[in-house]
Amino acid sequence: MNSGKFITVEGQDGAGKSTNIGVIQDCLTQHGIDFVETREPGGTRFGEQVRELLLNSADEQLGSRAELLLVFAARAQHIEEVITPALKQGKWVLCDRFTDATYAYQGGGRGLADTDIASLEQSVQGNLRPNLTLLLDVPIEIGISRAGSRSEPDRFELQQASFKQKVRDCYLQRAQAEPARIQVIDASMTLPDVKQSILKSLTAFINSNK
Amino acid sequence: MNSGKFITVEGQDGAGKSTNIGVIQDCLTQHGIDFVETREPGGTRFGEQVRELLLNSADEQLGSRAELLLVFAARAQHIEEVITPALKQGKWVLCDRFTDATYAYQGGGRGLADTDIASLEQSVQGNLRPNLTLLLDVPIEIGISRAGSRSEPDRFELQQASFKQKVRDCYLQRAQAEPARIQVIDASMTLPDVKQSILKSLTAFINSNK
Repeated sequence: MNSGKFITVEGQDGAGKSTNIGVIQDCLTQHGIDFVETREPGGTRFGEQVRELLLNSADEQLGSRAELLLVFAARAQHIEEVITPALKQGKWVLCDRFTDATYAYQGGGRGLADTDIASLEQSVQGNLRPNLTLLLDVPIEIGISRAGSRSEPDRFELQQASFKQKVRDCYLQRAQAEPARIQVIDASMTLPDVKQSILKSLTAFINSNK
Repeated sequence: MNSGKFITVEGQDGAGKSTNIGVIQDCLTQHGIDFVETREPGGTRFGEQVRELLLNSADEQLGSRAELLLVFAARAQHIEEVITPALKQGKWVLCDRFTDATYAYQGGGRGLADTDIASLEQSVQGNLRPNLTLLLDVPIEIGISRAGSRSEPDRFELQQASFKQKVRDCYLQRAQAEPARIQVIDASMTLPDVKQSILKSLTAFINSNK
């Protein structure tokens, strides 16, 4: 049996990830693709506990390096328990954020060295990399105003605009360095246009992998 | 001001760590040494949450690599928040378990490669290593029977005897490789004799560092 494909969705809060993951799910289903939907940080019981630790420790002064190791601890478990078994069974995996987010938030945002992240990436993931990444990109003002109309902000959402700008810049640089894998979706368009843009990338990917 | 000294106490459950840490504290106090007492996993609010995750996930099937990264995430925070600031202020630090335990449990016990642990040790600790480590060593049968008379066993205590044997062997190998730093205390002796043995190592260390 062929190994499944690994699709990740990236972008900052307010870029419309949740809505558009629904679009991707519908499209995969319509193509008869058996897939597992998951997210990071999270994806396992342990990972969800880590997510809690990570997002709700505003007064914690959690250091950048502790945060990075925590993210990869959850990822190691997620890969072992969920992602690799699904791919081996030929299922596709659709994951809301993965290691590009680590480069963007812990690297671009918090200033940890890319080499430190790359070394953990290699040791935890081996050869596992997403086959397709859809990066929902919006100017940070739009992201902030959209996210603001929802629930209470978590620790990452409370970060100031300059942090968000660095995260966005890092995401875009990564997309530029890996244009085949990372497809940038202009998420500042209207929802129907964003949907159209996602479906175009996704169906091209599906058709080339059937 | 001189930097403080970093003392760690190692050993398996049932070796008498808690009792003998009291002996060490009394001795440091009698010598007029200002010290901070702490423990791993733990030592910070974040670290204590990690400790909970780590010890109480019996049904969790937490993978070895996730466990290793989690241990070092807590350690990174512990070093940044507690250990380094104390040492810089000239205080001594007395820590119940540190990285030797990682080599013993995750390396010797669970079989992770020493090189993987060493690479995280280097990246998280830089040059920070204990100046003195007191290893309370008992044959595993004694440790198990002593620990068994206490509280409910946690996940690590539930490990079988062969695991404990591997942990002990690894601790002893490390002591053999670094005899100046790691002093083996035969903790199968009577409490007064163990106390005597600890005080001998500790006062020699204190006298050479005053």
